[in-house]
Amino acid sequence: MTTAAINGSKGDSLACVFCGSSDGNDPVYAEAARELGRELVKGGYGLVYGGGTWGLMGHLARSVHESKGKVLGIMPRALTRLEGFDDNLGEMVLVDNMHERKSKMEQHAAAFIALPGGFGTFEELLEIITWSTLSIHRKPVIVLDTNGYYSALREMVTKAVDAGFISPGKKNVAVFCSTPAEAVAAIKDYTPLPEQPGLSWEPKVSA
Amino acid sequence: MTTAAINGSKGDSLACVFCGSSDGNDPVYAEAARELGRELVKGGYGLVYGGGTWGLMGHLARSVHESKGKVLGIMPRALTRLEGFDDNLGEMVLVDNMHERKSKMEQHAAAFIALPGGFGTFEELLEIITWSTLSIHRKPVIVLDTNGYYSALREMVTKAVDAGFISPGKKNVAVFCSTPAEAVAAIKDYTPLPEQPGLSWEPKVSA
Ligand SMILES: [Mg+2]
Repeated sequence: MTTAAINGSKGDSLACVFCGSSDGNDPVYAEAARELGRELVKGGYGLVYGGGTWGLMGHLARSVHESKGKVLGIMPRALTRLEGFDDNLGEMVLVDNMHERKSKMEQHAAAFIALPGGFGTFEELLEIITWSTLSIHRKPVIVLDTNGYYSALREMVTKAVDAGFISPGKKNVAVFCSTPAEAVAAIKDYTPLPEQPGLSWEPKVSA
Repeated sequence: MTTAAINGSKGDSLACVFCGSSDGNDPVYAEAARELGRELVKGGYGLVYGGGTWGLMGHLARSVHESKGKVLGIMPRALTRLEGFDDNLGEMVLVDNMHERKSKMEQHAAAFIALPGGFGTFEELLEIITWSTLSIHRKPVIVLDTNGYYSALREMVTKAVDAGFISPGKKNVAVFCSTPAEAVAAIKDYTPLPEQPGLSWEPKVSA
């Protein structure tokens, strides 16, 4: 399946959003997800995401859909009950496993944004950051730090740079923003890492 | 290639270790990697890892090899120059991409341990934690918190539990340890998460 075949019309630029499949216990998180949906569409972006209808995933996808933005959801068959599947929100694609999900999300994304979430969200964000440091992609990576949710991640990165495990030039590969509007603006302002020389990734990720 | 074919003799139980391909700027990290190598062999474990010879990866693999333990390294072809490739340390397997690396490491591992590292290490650790929460595997996951390197990760998890994005029952899916000896002991003491009902992962991860 090609990007054009999935996107339908050309000109859809999709932002890939990683976020939780629960609401969290403060309404500020759901509100940030809904506002991000509206800001994405205002900024000319559709959404590619994990395909769930529960929690922040659902708030975000419904918000994009209601704002007349394109929604593309990619979900492993095994998770349809756990994350909630609803193909009225946009185009929903079922895949076999977690890797296929993330690989297809990456292929369709013009940029990546992380909202609050749990372990799955943390790993999706860190994987896409890692792929950027290895020049597997050079797309914007934005962390929407609602309520300071990601302050410990910032500390983790600072500690790794200070301890010599992350080079200082890679410290800001992910840009931290406080509001959805800033996050969408940061996509356009993003400066990619310099391309790492001597790496040849073909195929870049297996699908 | 089957596990038996790679492992050579049956009875090799391999611990999968995620760690940095640099030394960090404090000798305590390299010493922890070497000591972990010795403790693994003492505990009856060989090593499966990313296959690099530089940084903590190299210290660890040489230590296991010198202690007469089995070493299995799995490296994407694209990274042989960046991470250093040396097939005198054990059995080194080249694969096509990052997913194939992680998938093969998971298949051969009896347990997972994270030493300090950078973005790649963080994402490998969080991926294997995520897979545990989704019942893709139920193997021990241990964080070797040398020098308090992972204290921010602990805070990140605590914040996610407090905010309602990680259920309290999953808070301790990864066990934090201060020394290599404790980390190896924690493999044997590990209590897996209850199996998540209703998930059917076949194939569990694509190879
Ligand atoms: Mg990952």
